[in-house]
Amino acid sequence: MPIQDPGYRFAARVAGLKSSAIREILCVVNKPDVISFAGGLPAPELFPTELLGALARDLFQSREAPQALQYGETEGVPALRGRILERAPFPAGAFGPDGVVVTQGSQQGLDLVAKLFVDPGDEVLVETPAYVGALQAFSFLGARVTFVPCDGEGLLPDALAAALRRRPKLLYLTPTFQNPSGVCYPARRRAEIREALAGSDTLLVEDDPYRELWYDAPPPAPVAEGLDPARFLYMGSFSKTAVPGLRIGFALGPPALVRRCVLAKQAADLHTNSLGQHLLARLLAEPAFDDHVAGLRRAYRARRDALDAALTARLAGALSWSRPGGGMFLWARLAGGGDAAELLQLALQEGLAFVPGGEFHREGEGRDTLRLNFSHSGETKLREGVERLARAVGRWREKRR
Amino acid sequence: MPIQDPGYRFAARVAGLKSSAIREILCVVNKPDVISFAGGLPAPELFPTELLGALARDLFQSREAPQALQYGETEGVPALRGRILERAPFPAGAFGPDGVVVTQGSQQGLDLVAKLFVDPGDEVLVETPAYVGALQAFSFLGARVTFVPCDGEGLLPDALAAALRRRPKLLYLTPTFQNPSGVCYPARRRAEIREALAGSDTLLVEDDPYRELWYDAPPPAPVAEGLDPARFLYMGSFSKTAVPGLRIGFALGPPALVRRCVLAKQAADLHTNSLGQHLLARLLAEPAFDDHVAGLRRAYRARRDALDAALTARLAGALSWSRPGGGMFLWARLAGGGDAAELLQLALQEGLAFVPGGEFHREGEGRDTLRLNFSHSGETKLREGVERLARAVGRWREKRR
Repeated sequence: MPIQDPGYRFAARVAGLKSSAIREILCVVNKPDVISFAGGLPAPELFPTELLGALARDLFQSREAPQALQYGETEGVPALRGRILERAPFPAGAFGPDGVVVTQGSQQGLDLVAKLFVDPGDEVLVETPAYVGALQAFSFLGARVTFVPCDGEGLLPDALAAALRRRPKLLYLTPTFQNPSGVCYPARRRAEIREALAGSDTLLVEDDPYRELWYDAPPPAPVAEGLDPARFLYMGSFSKTAVPGLRIGFALGPPALVRRCVLAKQAADLHTNSLGQHLLARLLAEPAFDDHVAGLRRAYRARRDALDAALTARLAGALSWSRPGGGMFLWARLAGGGDAAELLQLALQEGLAFVPGGEFHREGEGRDTLRLNFSHSGETKLREGVERLARAVGRWREKRR
Repeated sequence: MPIQDPGYRFAARVAGLKSSAIREILCVVNKPDVISFAGGLPAPELFPTELLGALARDLFQSREAPQALQYGETEGVPALRGRILERAPFPAGAFGPDGVVVTQGSQQGLDLVAKLFVDPGDEVLVETPAYVGALQAFSFLGARVTFVPCDGEGLLPDALAAALRRRPKLLYLTPTFQNPSGVCYPARRRAEIREALAGSDTLLVEDDPYRELWYDAPPPAPVAEGLDPARFLYMGSFSKTAVPGLRIGFALGPPALVRRCVLAKQAADLHTNSLGQHLLARLLAEPAFDDHVAGLRRAYRARRDALDAALTARLAGALSWSRPGGGMFLWARLAGGGDAAELLQLALQEGLAFVPGGEFHREGEGRDTLRLNFSHSGETKLREGVERLARAVGRWREKRR
């Protein structure tokens, strides 16, 4: 049925709606002979599949089964909310059960916050570079996004203080093993950020999905810890530690704010899927779950080291990077400048995909950066991928002469 | 932690954000001795729990398991999208796989449509009464909602034609066993609606979650069938036929429109939970699934008949209603007028909950209506509930003298 686009009368916000370049690359690279450093996928062979299967069997045979298949509260399944409060990396229990809402991945938390705070033209501060899903969520609701400069330890406190004087609505931070930069703010920088925020009425949205994936040392406490508790919303996810396919994340914060998130979620999707919530509540109650996360740390550490070592051996002169202390990404820069999107075309011909860093920046900036995922490929593939990248870099340099 | 609400600088749209009265009533009635005609819940004892449990066991033991736990495409799992196209109640296959997106219940479809089409102040036409979840989704994005008058066969064609002259952005219809009214537009009225829409550039959003729950005769084809295929989006749900807890619905329409829904969904939650989609695709492939739906029809028909008979025996003079031909609700009116919210207070004292119909209407209208759910209570409970309602009506009439 060849249907003519009749010129839909879309809302103004649709003009800026575009697909993330990452998702487009993922379509191209879905071939078995391509090695992909592009996606942000955890390793499926490390999923707690057997454990989840056993828990699902128990759940379906239990008296809880019908409840796990029925409509549920918008706030989320109480047992899961309790586990989330227990596991929070700061004393969130003090918020009480009304201080947590289960979301459809932490991405939904961003959509809810955008709806609650962003009128068209409102300013939202983000890091440079910034998580692309947040840029999409904020921009779609009409935010004027300001990229605040960062160094290898995160947001620059002076630049933040200057920007806060304009009273932006939100400050969006991913201070712990950021996607894409891998940066983890040290404790001192976190303290400086808190200091800059003191007295400001800009809401801190701290997105912290990678916290448990540390490879050298556990990360410092969240920036939110120690802030005025009325002035932040803290988001987390089980996509990296449990499995992404359940689509379960959460937002923690003052009940007055979480209540608004719940009302916005009611209109968005009524509630997060019940089956996944019941399964996850059971998974988090297993002592084996913490062993599983420790195992992930060991496996991903080995992958990070393999990527780092291969890059050092083959591309030390062509790329610069810092070895990330956690998370799923290594962030690199073309040592002599240039456009990583051009390099990607040659890399794809060699059978390697990655994400050029431009889209994590203000339009037109960051072209010399690239994001390399190391969680999804085993060590052999990581080394082979670096070989292919090195060949592509060689050809690219030839061309640039 | 008693946290002061510091006066958040919310977006303008938050001013109109309020909880559905239904959800508030549901909190009150969560006691074992209260009989609830209030919620819109399917009967958990009729869930295909055993079948789903067996399918989950197979899935977790299959090679598909890691994929069912991994991130997935925003559009939805291909096998499920194929099943949705096959089962569509009109020739939707012609749209092709790009004409379907899996949503987080059909509620999410409403959120996506609102984001794509509604600028603050844009007009959206709805029925009188209208589904409350749609009112929430459209209003939150700033829509100016116009309630178009209806009779017992649905929207009045002349009133629709007049309203369409103002070129509203959307026409939202639930023409098949509507929540709350139970109305099913006959074929003739559907044809008149199509005629009124011909030549208009208002998009029809047809929400059709109750289609398979018919008790006397199958409903006529969707209003969308026969319309210009560029001019509608058709939404459905598996919450009433399979289980609600998986939170899986869908939107079908022209690829140019569905593509926009996919982009908006990317920013909202990346994708619908993979495990639920894989389970549902397997469930829909089972020949036993159609038997299950036929069984639901038999059981719910008996419940509808029990409620109808009890009301006839005990409340024929006090209430007026039409026996619904499908769906989950019986819609009644106080024969001599009055405020159903007042009646609810007395009914709760007698141990019965229902939903006063006001919130399905323009502010201040429809106070003499009430919605009675018959899918969630067995026949004995339905009869006992009507006894309690009759006692409440008796006391309420005493008071009004």
